[in-house]
Amino acid sequence: MDPIEPSGISRRVMLSTLAVLPVLPGLLRPIPAAAQAAAEATAADGPLPSWNDGAAKQAILDFVRATTDQASQSYVRPEERSATFDQDGTLWVEHPMYSQVVYCLDRVPAVVAKRPELRNAEPFKTVLSGNRAAMAKLSMRDLETILAATLTGMTVEDFNAEAMKWLETARHPRWQRPYTELVYQPMLEVLRHLRDNGYKTYIVTGGGQDFVRIYSERIYGIPPEQVVGTAGATKFGYGKDGKPFLTKEPKLLLNDNNAGKPEGIHLMIGRRPHAAFGNSNGDREMLEWTGAGAGARLKMLVLHDDVTREYAYGPAAGLPDTKVGALTAALYGEARKDGWSVISMKNDWKRIFAFE
Amino acid sequence: MDPIEPSGISRRVMLSTLAVLPVLPGLLRPIPAAAQAAAEATAADGPLPSWNDGAAKQAILDFVRATTDQASQSYVRPEERSATFDQDGTLWVEHPMYSQVVYCLDRVPAVVAKRPELRNAEPFKTVLSGNRAAMAKLSMRDLETILAATLTGMTVEDFNAEAMKWLETARHPRWQRPYTELVYQPMLEVLRHLRDNGYKTYIVTGGGQDFVRIYSERIYGIPPEQVVGTAGATKFGYGKDGKPFLTKEPKLLLNDNNAGKPEGIHLMIGRRPHAAFGNSNGDREMLEWTGAGAGARLKMLVLHDDVTREYAYGPAAGLPDTKVGALTAALYGEARKDGWSVISMKNDWKRIFAFE
Repeated sequence: MDPIEPSGISRRVMLSTLAVLPVLPGLLRPIPAAAQAAAEATAADGPLPSWNDGAAKQAILDFVRATTDQASQSYVRPEERSATFDQDGTLWVEHPMYSQVVYCLDRVPAVVAKRPELRNAEPFKTVLSGNRAAMAKLSMRDLETILAATLTGMTVEDFNAEAMKWLETARHPRWQRPYTELVYQPMLEVLRHLRDNGYKTYIVTGGGQDFVRIYSERIYGIPPEQVVGTAGATKFGYGKDGKPFLTKEPKLLLNDNNAGKPEGIHLMIGRRPHAAFGNSNGDREMLEWTGAGAGARLKMLVLHDDVTREYAYGPAAGLPDTKVGALTAALYGEARKDGWSVISMKNDWKRIFAFE
Repeated sequence: MDPIEPSGISRRVMLSTLAVLPVLPGLLRPIPAAAQAAAEATAADGPLPSWNDGAAKQAILDFVRATTDQASQSYVRPEERSATFDQDGTLWVEHPMYSQVVYCLDRVPAVVAKRPELRNAEPFKTVLSGNRAAMAKLSMRDLETILAATLTGMTVEDFNAEAMKWLETARHPRWQRPYTELVYQPMLEVLRHLRDNGYKTYIVTGGGQDFVRIYSERIYGIPPEQVVGTAGATKFGYGKDGKPFLTKEPKLLLNDNNAGKPEGIHLMIGRRPHAAFGNSNGDREMLEWTGAGAGARLKMLVLHDDVTREYAYGPAAGLPDTKVGALTAALYGEARKDGWSVISMKNDWKRIFAFE
């Protein structure tokens, strides 16, 4: 019934941003069959086996030690320990396009099948055309129309079932693997190391809260109640059988980007994090808010400087510019000035993915 | 600096609702000096020592056993176990008036001191007059104006400091104790029993989320990130020193009452609870939403039928009507019909407070 083919994603994923991306290097390059052994950390490797020794790894280890050693001036009681992580570009791949945007574009044919009046209406007509040049010209407003049509107007259960199905079948155009396999192994180790030391780990993402909650526990070990994301209202109602249900409404409650991140942290968590991880300008305010707290605070930025194993984009540090997850020279400068740690994917990470 | 006297509360707490309340019985009745021994549960007493044997106690014990015994058909994995509790009237005393409303009325003189233009403006003028009859006629819109003026327009830190100071000094007019001592000992035991069995416990309150988070960990053992309540927006900004701060804005994001409770649970928790506790019509949708899930679900209503030890109000079960935390005959009927458990404060609880 659903006309979406997993292999069709690379043809349809575009938007304006895609037009400016460099040609993808390494497309379909062979992937080592089983690097499983390397994926399993041994005690001898310490808590961060996929990290090279260096300032970034040391900053994480030092922070955890300083905040969990009762003799330390920076000791934090276990019940107060919290760490927040951006998702796109910080925990998993965000290029060539945010996975959830791909999901929304892939959903358009199914939405139009149920609402035929949209078939010849923009921006749906353009998305259905598959005309890459035309799609590249879609505006932010067009994109919002697509998001509203594909993410709202159904019950939360129906949404979960649809998104789950997509996550199981969709493949990333470069690695031809499910998006949920494209998580950064070194960051999974940071999550685990923090949790092993009493930290509650949270995702604080510009992505849709309901979308990320579907897989967060399985993929990151982060339960749905510890996912803060861009969130819309729901509406409580009763079915004909008298059974209550919640419908996803096209009304934005929290735009969890930029200033929305500390605002979302206050709304959903109510504590200032002791550690925060991001990779782009959308994470700036979260890291500033984290850093403004007393005692030891860890602020880290992932720098995408590995064109061979992942992608290279900035425009900070002389890397190519991008519209998807840009890290500007200004923020990079602020990070350097205020003592944030920058993680070089190229130099700090022994490997990027568990499957390598 | 602050002209508010703790002993002045009973003169100022009124609103329209107070006019219809029965004369408070037992005002200033002597309180047993040290019932401390009774407060400490012994292993021999089992997990709910302040509960009399009966259907309500048994429903709790049966539910916990059914959902935690791996051999049970209703077994729930530990990471999925969640239970939600209304606060006012379910975990602590809500009569003669919700504690947070008392706080807001008490804050009016301090707000007017900083904003003298409000002194002769309604509804502030009426609140400052102390004229009980006039205050009893304030409308819901007046009350909202007072809430906005007293709960917003300051940083989250300033709000926390002010509310904390009030909580330490304010006294309930009947017991002359801090409001935070007027929590129901039997419900604290339910919270602990659920947590001892792997449940995450949440408060889901119509009260202000930021207000309740201040004391939830200390009083209920529930951390701030597990408090869902009526919530307003905050606004991120920078001080002259460049340091970021969050200001509480008069913009409502979540009205966590009635349908707002399941909507708030979806927004903040993202899981349907397995158990839910309430006491009034504002909890109806939360209990329905909880009950609509598969497997064993515990739905409980606290019935205030103890005029001697606490208060008696319904109007369900032939009890006096009230505008503060009413439980209607219709909801009481739904509870009976759908197998919800009703907790009789009079018959099911050996004692109400830890200090008794």
